[in-house]
Amino acid sequence: MSRYIDNLNWRYATKKFDSSKKISEKDLEVLLEATALSASSYGLQPYEILVIQDPELRSKLQPEAWGQSQITQASHLIVLANKESFGEELVDDYLKNVSETRGIAAEDLTGYADFMKSKLMTLTEEEKTIWTARQAYIALGNLLSAAADMKIDTCPMEGFDSERFNEILGLNEKGLNAAVLVAVGYRSEEDETQHYKKVRKSKENLITHI
Amino acid sequence: MSRYIDNLNWRYATKKFDSSKKISEKDLEVLLEATALSASSYGLQPYEILVIQDPELRSKLQPEAWGQSQITQASHLIVLANKESFGEELVDDYLKNVSETRGIAAEDLTGYADFMKSKLMTLTEEEKTIWTARQAYIALGNLLSAAADMKIDTCPMEGFDSERFNEILGLNEKGLNAAVLVAVGYRSEEDETQHYKKVRKSKENLITHI
Repeated sequence: MSRYIDNLNWRYATKKFDSSKKISEKDLEVLLEATALSASSYGLQPYEILVIQDPELRSKLQPEAWGQSQITQASHLIVLANKESFGEELVDDYLKNVSETRGIAAEDLTGYADFMKSKLMTLTEEEKTIWTARQAYIALGNLLSAAADMKIDTCPMEGFDSERFNEILGLNEKGLNAAVLVAVGYRSEEDETQHYKKVRKSKENLITHI
Repeated sequence: MSRYIDNLNWRYATKKFDSSKKISEKDLEVLLEATALSASSYGLQPYEILVIQDPELRSKLQPEAWGQSQITQASHLIVLANKESFGEELVDDYLKNVSETRGIAAEDLTGYADFMKSKLMTLTEEEKTIWTARQAYIALGNLLSAAADMKIDTCPMEGFDSERFNEILGLNEKGLNAAVLVAVGYRSEEDETQHYKKVRKSKENLITHI
């Protein structure tokens, strides 16, 4: 476990990536496999993951993210895109998967389907978006830790124009919204911020035991 | 890294905890230290973490969470509570911490303070709540992975009445809101769901490479 904590202390929001260092295909696959194993409410995973390597596309995205260099300099740019909305098909698709994966007859899952739908279909459109984005953020938290475990550097980024990202990436047509970005790759030796002492709230200010 | 993936495959949303097994103080401290190291936007950590062991309090909370047994049977109940709102003090307190931790004069941070405030103080009250909750969900994702690394079982829970939780836990007075719960402890041998095959979207449905 101390290794897990060592990894979290090693990681930092990388400001400057070494653009000559690329994540190997094998490592990228492991990182994405870990991310795909993230927990989500009811297991519904109401989001998609875009992994962008294409330099031209990233150059087009960069000005929509305050011109930050991580967008183009990192090995890959990952976009976690939550579903803007959803209907009953979200539950139906999931339960079809449950049925196939676990070999349970679909009709034995109708009670569970009705329960989930009673909870989810009563949400307003806005509540649906808020909820799907939260699920994407669980994946974000796990992705950052998984990357640290592999000594892959990351920079999670909220500073971008999501409407412009959605347009450029064609997400609107898919009913998706760019919730958060993660630049992944390897830190540049020149990034001075890697030497900064980590700043966190004191335990007294963060944690209450009852 | 395969250990990381093995851990994620080992974990599941625990339905039935063994109430006789408690997390040791030492392990709990490590788990909370890992959680405290979670990334957050600008490093602001706009949430607090409640760790509830008190059985009476948990009995009082249980009916407000659909009567789910994890609330009372798990070793501990963790509440991630995001800030309902915030003013400039969120940035000022953080930069005071930066100044002390890194030995930087406060006046050398005023430019950065102004930048952060220009981004955060223009958010509406509702946008602030959405944003702080997202940060808490990054901590959730990391907490679940950290627990799995320690072979501590977890059940993340969104099914509860947050207004009633806020009342019972006195969170309103602190400007906090119960965003999500995590029951933590050790699975009961009788929990059949631990043997269920994990259900996840296929890579084709989840991930797009560009």
